[in-house]
Amino acid sequence: MSCSVYVLLLSTLCLMSMAEAAIRHYKWDVKYEYKSPDCFKKLSITINGMAPGPTITAHQGDTVVVEVTNSLVTEGLTIHWHGIRQIGTPWFDGTEAVSQCPIVSGDTFVYKFVVDRAGTYLYHAHYGMQREAGLNGMIIVSVPKGQSEPFVYDFDRSILLTDWYHKSTHEATAGLTSKPFVWIGEPQSLLIQGRGWYNCSLVNAPTSNTGVCNTTNPECSPFSMTVVPGKTYRLRVGSLTSLAALSFEIEEHNMTVVEADGHYVEPFTVKNLFIYSGETYSVLVTANQDPSRNYWATVNVVSRKPSTPTGLAIFNYYPNPPLRHPPTVPTTGPMWNDTEPRLAQSHAIKARKGYIIPPPPTSDRHIILLNTQNKIDGYTKWALNNVSLTFPTTPYLVALKEKRLTYKLPELFDQTPPPDVYDWEHYDIHNIAPNVNATSRNAIYRLDFNTTVDVVLQNANTMNPNNSETHPWHLHGHDFWVLGYGEGKFNPLNDPKKYNLVNPIMKNTVPLHPYGWTALRFRADNPGIWLFHCHIDSHFLMGMGVVFEEGIDKVGELNSSIMGCGLTKNFFRP
Amino acid sequence: MSCSVYVLLLSTLCLMSMAEAAIRHYKWDVKYEYKSPDCFKKLSITINGMAPGPTITAHQGDTVVVEVTNSLVTEGLTIHWHGIRQIGTPWFDGTEAVSQCPIVSGDTFVYKFVVDRAGTYLYHAHYGMQREAGLNGMIIVSVPKGQSEPFVYDFDRSILLTDWYHKSTHEATAGLTSKPFVWIGEPQSLLIQGRGWYNCSLVNAPTSNTGVCNTTNPECSPFSMTVVPGKTYRLRVGSLTSLAALSFEIEEHNMTVVEADGHYVEPFTVKNLFIYSGETYSVLVTANQDPSRNYWATVNVVSRKPSTPTGLAIFNYYPNPPLRHPPTVPTTGPMWNDTEPRLAQSHAIKARKGYIIPPPPTSDRHIILLNTQNKIDGYTKWALNNVSLTFPTTPYLVALKEKRLTYKLPELFDQTPPPDVYDWEHYDIHNIAPNVNATSRNAIYRLDFNTTVDVVLQNANTMNPNNSETHPWHLHGHDFWVLGYGEGKFNPLNDPKKYNLVNPIMKNTVPLHPYGWTALRFRADNPGIWLFHCHIDSHFLMGMGVVFEEGIDKVGELNSSIMGCGLTKNFFRP
Repeated sequence: MSCSVYVLLLSTLCLMSMAEAAIRHYKWDVKYEYKSPDCFKKLSITINGMAPGPTITAHQGDTVVVEVTNSLVTEGLTIHWHGIRQIGTPWFDGTEAVSQCPIVSGDTFVYKFVVDRAGTYLYHAHYGMQREAGLNGMIIVSVPKGQSEPFVYDFDRSILLTDWYHKSTHEATAGLTSKPFVWIGEPQSLLIQGRGWYNCSLVNAPTSNTGVCNTTNPECSPFSMTVVPGKTYRLRVGSLTSLAALSFEIEEHNMTVVEADGHYVEPFTVKNLFIYSGETYSVLVTANQDPSRNYWATVNVVSRKPSTPTGLAIFNYYPNPPLRHPPTVPTTGPMWNDTEPRLAQSHAIKARKGYIIPPPPTSDRHIILLNTQNKIDGYTKWALNNVSLTFPTTPYLVALKEKRLTYKLPELFDQTPPPDVYDWEHYDIHNIAPNVNATSRNAIYRLDFNTTVDVVLQNANTMNPNNSETHPWHLHGHDFWVLGYGEGKFNPLNDPKKYNLVNPIMKNTVPLHPYGWTALRFRADNPGIWLFHCHIDSHFLMGMGVVFEEGIDKVGELNSSIMGCGLTKNFFRP
Repeated sequence: MSCSVYVLLLSTLCLMSMAEAAIRHYKWDVKYEYKSPDCFKKLSITINGMAPGPTITAHQGDTVVVEVTNSLVTEGLTIHWHGIRQIGTPWFDGTEAVSQCPIVSGDTFVYKFVVDRAGTYLYHAHYGMQREAGLNGMIIVSVPKGQSEPFVYDFDRSILLTDWYHKSTHEATAGLTSKPFVWIGEPQSLLIQGRGWYNCSLVNAPTSNTGVCNTTNPECSPFSMTVVPGKTYRLRVGSLTSLAALSFEIEEHNMTVVEADGHYVEPFTVKNLFIYSGETYSVLVTANQDPSRNYWATVNVVSRKPSTPTGLAIFNYYPNPPLRHPPTVPTTGPMWNDTEPRLAQSHAIKARKGYIIPPPPTSDRHIILLNTQNKIDGYTKWALNNVSLTFPTTPYLVALKEKRLTYKLPELFDQTPPPDVYDWEHYDIHNIAPNVNATSRNAIYRLDFNTTVDVVLQNANTMNPNNSETHPWHLHGHDFWVLGYGEGKFNPLNDPKKYNLVNPIMKNTVPLHPYGWTALRFRADNPGIWLFHCHIDSHFLMGMGVVFEEGIDKVGELNSSIMGCGLTKNFFRP
């Protein structure tokens, strides 16, 4: 275990003795229900009738128990606790095919894990594209009682940002996995805390075949955040978009960024916050403008040519009516194709003084992952170093941990690891590459336990001319240090010299900007099998991810509840 | 084992030695794909790209092996071999929650069973409402080579009849299981061999939200059955509608019924054939009309007020162009609400002379099942003797067979059997009943092995005034003798005297007519757990079924491939 994890565990233990860790018990029923989050009626996946689902609130050191009943009738289900490292509980990471089998419809699965660090986290379905159907929510972990944070605010609020499609996830999935590939297109709307607005006149009069669109449905009245003039708000903002990179802003109000993915940020002030799927931020906002009116809070798409209208919420000054529209025209946000301010924000995020966890000065292993779009057997895929990720039928965690299965490993998944590097000297990241050698494989990276690993994500041109996309990469089971971002091709000889080893932020999700690179470092100190993947739902479905194994021999005994697929079908011997 | 099963097994064995039983191997990939069977583009479940799936053909005594790969991404799957009794292989009945856990997405499941009797059978998904999405097909079992049938024909043809919805099964399911209940309505079209026709002008211009409807799509050109003038055709007709009871006819052509559900029928001639979901018939048709033109083959809805247009195919006289429309207006079929001719057809179906399997003269157990529609906890349900069927998370077959699980039985499902009878003396079947005591339960009927069981299905008024529906009841694992049909309330003292014990047909699916009763008898001689249920997809989902256990101690060792849900999650010890 790394020093940092030791420190965290120790401090957790200390705090637990101080503040008495609680058990937070949740009982969730997951099913399909019609919802009209943007006025268009669509079958959504709900938790206890809600989409987004209920916010989990806990104090650092608490144990969260979520008893999930899958009532989806024919679909399996898993839920991932995004940002929670699952130290000692890798089987509760909720990653289908990696840490568990899908929960069979009708079954109840109990997730149980410790939230060991204060901060803002997320949860969402991690099976097929179910996240896109609405199964997502936030986890808010407060500092232990009596402990203070390095910034002050009067109230704590949170909003979850998502994008929303009118087609079903089954339709989206069928298109992405068909030959030729059929793209579902851009989202119909952006939702702030599960509420958006769609221009129903774009939909024809309802028939038995079209959904019903009704702009007077109270379900799609905008989210309104009421503020008291003069007060300062800690606003926790999370993004779980399927696709869209976003710019979030509150008209006439500056925001001071103080937290990112559960780590304190050296404060900096922005007019608009860029946020990528899988990220969370806390910003401080003071209600210091003319209190006689309301203000627009807006989200806009960046990095892709936006065909999705601005998402709107109301920043409501008390006692104005919460839904009274501001007198202004909402902003359409920054230029969608201007990467510079996004890169600048990425650079600006540093660990806060006094809260810096120094990274190991050197690394034991260097992995460079070239991100490419490829055709494999006529299917459109994403690949890393020419390997597009597929999954075995028996989850990696079970396949690798169960001694009685290990002799079968070669038939369970490809035992030849994917390459650590690509031919960086000769690959032209600025042009469409032939990419003739890409393959779909379920091989994994096996990391030596307690070593330090560097990963450089290298972006490239897609299969379309002059196009490179933004990919938010998320690592399960860890935070990593963000050592640097660069434009163009990463040079492994020179660029590491520019790494920030002084005050890098730790995060679990980080953007890879178009035609750029992102360098990160982590300690392979959390026994388990961990996914590292692009957090765009469709990209992940198309193979954009890798799997890390570390310390599998140190993983405790697996619970049979995570089994039921592949070679793990048998009756339970109690 | 009953005499009849012995006779069949013996004759199978004899024939196998004569004709050498073959192994018929099929490899199926099941996934979602867009199809336009009635010109409207809709996500359908396909087998190797087809909906309906490929026809399984075999000779009596052959072993059919179907290797099913579930590529539905997030959905489980099971496939039922409808009419195949699975003697000795109850674990391959394909009934989710009864004989197996759903096949997890990505897994491959191998069904292997003997087709022990010539005849016309079906297969279809048996999980949630997946059948409605198109996973269905036919099984045609020929008599052993060298053996002849008691009727002659020149050619053997088959058609599968289905109804088709434009809404997804997820939408249908969500409505049926919501409170208040939302009814998906009548089907948009009727398909003959997977082809129908929808009036696209009823759908608005395509937008991103509506499906695409295109009447020139070749996928929805009508099914055309080419016949040579003067020749006689054995036409095997199967129905796997989700909802609709059908009348099938071929313009200007009589049909002689010769087979029903795999049993020879004492021939009788009809102008139109009534056929209910789950039934199969063979009819002989001679191409004896004016050969210079084509004729309409039509299906029309009966028993429910039809809002679904006539389904059309072309009975094409060679060498006329196959798709040339007949010069006539297609029939709209018999009066939808005239039960009399349907009852008359039911009465007309008797076992063929020389092929009569006599029923046991008496029965050991008498079960009368009152069919009612009920409200339970605000949900709309169907119930038998006030019990609406739900399912345990561990399949019955595993729960009851695995000795190491049986001590847990009381927590696996309700051990108190449902009632054998209802209060027939006092219940008014012609009026809406209060039905206040209905409950949802997962209890089962346990039958003494090798006994004879009578079941009388009693229809009643639904929750709507002056309404009683047609329910096609299907028994897994058996054929039953159809002892009689009656109108009104079955009187257990007098009506059994009118039973046909001389030449009753054996079937696996039988209609229960509005306000009527249907009596059947079977031998509990097939070790296993067998579902008996209304074959209307939505009715079954709403609890309209019962479960029979018989000879569980005689069931062989279960294969771990059927496990993976409930208490059957564990790693496989080979």
